[in-house]
Amino acid sequence: MTGTAIGEFDLIRRCFTRARDASAPGIVLGIGDDAALLAPAPGCECVVSVDTLVAGVHFPADTPPADIGWKSLAVNLSDLAAMGATPRACFLALTLPQSDEDWCAEFARGFFALADSAGCALAGGDTTSGSLSITVTVIGEAPAGRALRRAGARAGDLVCVSGTPGEAALGLARWQAGNRDAHDAAIARLLRPSPRVALGEALRGIATACIDVSDGLLGDLGHVLRASGNLGADIDLAALPRAASLAALSDDSFFDQVLAGGDDYELCFTVPAAAYEQAIAAGKAAGVAVSVIGRVTPDGDVRCLDAGGNIRPVTRHSWEHFTP
Amino acid sequence: MTGTAIGEFDLIRRCFTRARDASAPGIVLGIGDDAALLAPAPGCECVVSVDTLVAGVHFPADTPPADIGWKSLAVNLSDLAAMGATPRACFLALTLPQSDEDWCAEFARGFFALADSAGCALAGGDTTSGSLSITVTVIGEAPAGRALRRAGARAGDLVCVSGTPGEAALGLARWQAGNRDAHDAAIARLLRPSPRVALGEALRGIATACIDVSDGLLGDLGHVLRASGNLGADIDLAALPRAASLAALSDDSFFDQVLAGGDDYELCFTVPAAAYEQAIAAGKAAGVAVSVIGRVTPDGDVRCLDAGGNIRPVTRHSWEHFTP
Repeated sequence: MTGTAIGEFDLIRRCFTRARDASAPGIVLGIGDDAALLAPAPGCECVVSVDTLVAGVHFPADTPPADIGWKSLAVNLSDLAAMGATPRACFLALTLPQSDEDWCAEFARGFFALADSAGCALAGGDTTSGSLSITVTVIGEAPAGRALRRAGARAGDLVCVSGTPGEAALGLARWQAGNRDAHDAAIARLLRPSPRVALGEALRGIATACIDVSDGLLGDLGHVLRASGNLGADIDLAALPRAASLAALSDDSFFDQVLAGGDDYELCFTVPAAAYEQAIAAGKAAGVAVSVIGRVTPDGDVRCLDAGGNIRPVTRHSWEHFTP
Repeated sequence: MTGTAIGEFDLIRRCFTRARDASAPGIVLGIGDDAALLAPAPGCECVVSVDTLVAGVHFPADTPPADIGWKSLAVNLSDLAAMGATPRACFLALTLPQSDEDWCAEFARGFFALADSAGCALAGGDTTSGSLSITVTVIGEAPAGRALRRAGARAGDLVCVSGTPGEAALGLARWQAGNRDAHDAAIARLLRPSPRVALGEALRGIATACIDVSDGLLGDLGHVLRASGNLGADIDLAALPRAASLAALSDDSFFDQVLAGGDDYELCFTVPAAAYEQAIAAGKAAGVAVSVIGRVTPDGDVRCLDAGGNIRPVTRHSWEHFTP
């Protein structure tokens, strides 16, 4: 951060206050008062998620600020997508080592690029001094009783995943090896993940359970299975979708990347076998491929099966802060 | 932080997950999914505020964790109070240098003590590793169109303030001088401010404008006056309420403390002169004194007048992050 230092209120006014946000659908009163006022649509529930990104933990410290802005919103919109919610408003709590208008303008450029494409208005927040970290709160809505949840999967349901998980983990490995090519497909996936909002909305009434893949496919699927009554799943390794950027990997590396790599922000969800066509169609309508990668089982174990039906052991499952 | 280290998910489960929050009014789905589901009351708007507290910036680094927990929620509930909103749900984004169950249990004790007294359920959040900082999002509700705002003061309105501002600044001075007596009135005000939620609710339909005093009385009143069309105010110094803990101060020190001291979380609001009795009654009903300290003027200047009608110059106005 080496740009122009300005005061807190000027920073908010210049970088983060836009007329279009103040008059967005559902926003009664935006930035500039003690709190924002939102008018929920009749018959809808509010869907609320909060996530913090810390420099050096959730993104490499030298990530371009526009990408940090994008990603700090993306991880939150991904939570709304997993609930099948329509984004409405977001709130940005930005902690910065020092005031820097140039940095903030770049951050805002990435943040608003995604906010505008998702129809999510910035309605408030806070700016404070401290180590770089970003906490975003997103508020969406879904018709009452129709939001997707983790609990709800049933034995016999198909296990599905959107897109091609594993690319972000490869992107991180490349970044850590010194690659800074934003046009590299894997690095682009790391820096600018696409929250699957349209897919989540399309899955309302189809999926029995849903989660976004932030900590690793197997770990996140495990959350769904536990929440659904300690079910299990058989994963068909041959059915895992393989991104072009992962084509050169050995099968073992590929499986590790896909099953345990974090930061993909794809959706993992379950559907009744009878809803297979609807799930594929939901993906088509939302512009992202949907792959069936396995089936929910009643026994509480997750087994990864190769083409011959043999169980492949998997060691690394998921990311957890403060793993003792 | 020197207590027992545990994993992120266990930390959330043991310290922050309570059955009563999951079944609180308006909470459809609380902690444990990708997002929370809230059911807004019919005819109400959602009132949303977000504030971050950073160790060493917003509270002394050696503040007891239970007091940090209380205060991190209090500053947010105070924003809801300033809008006249009824608290419903809060979300806690907690960034910690290391996992420490003992620290978190104490933090949670202070946090929940205030949450329970305010009827605000913890419905979600995030736990990450990094420098100690806390971002809380609060969501309340108010009947549509009836929330209090900063804009709305009119020339001739009475300027009112609740309680006895200035005590928190004295408490901070005493803390910095080594006093750690939590029973000291000024230190108690610093560590455990009382958000004026009941007063804010009682002022709906009475106050023309309202703000909470977080950055200093004159500075925060200035926000109201600017938002209301660049109005001014005459402040009657002799009318400023004086806490017992400030009795020993010289008039000059007292005025500085009251007018520019931050962290009080009292409400500063304006009412039409005809609503004087109602404003006093609202304070009585809410259990906090309300003082009339001046009057809104049309000219854009804020003047502090002594008992003889002379203008007293005031230099230090308000707290701002990144003041260049």
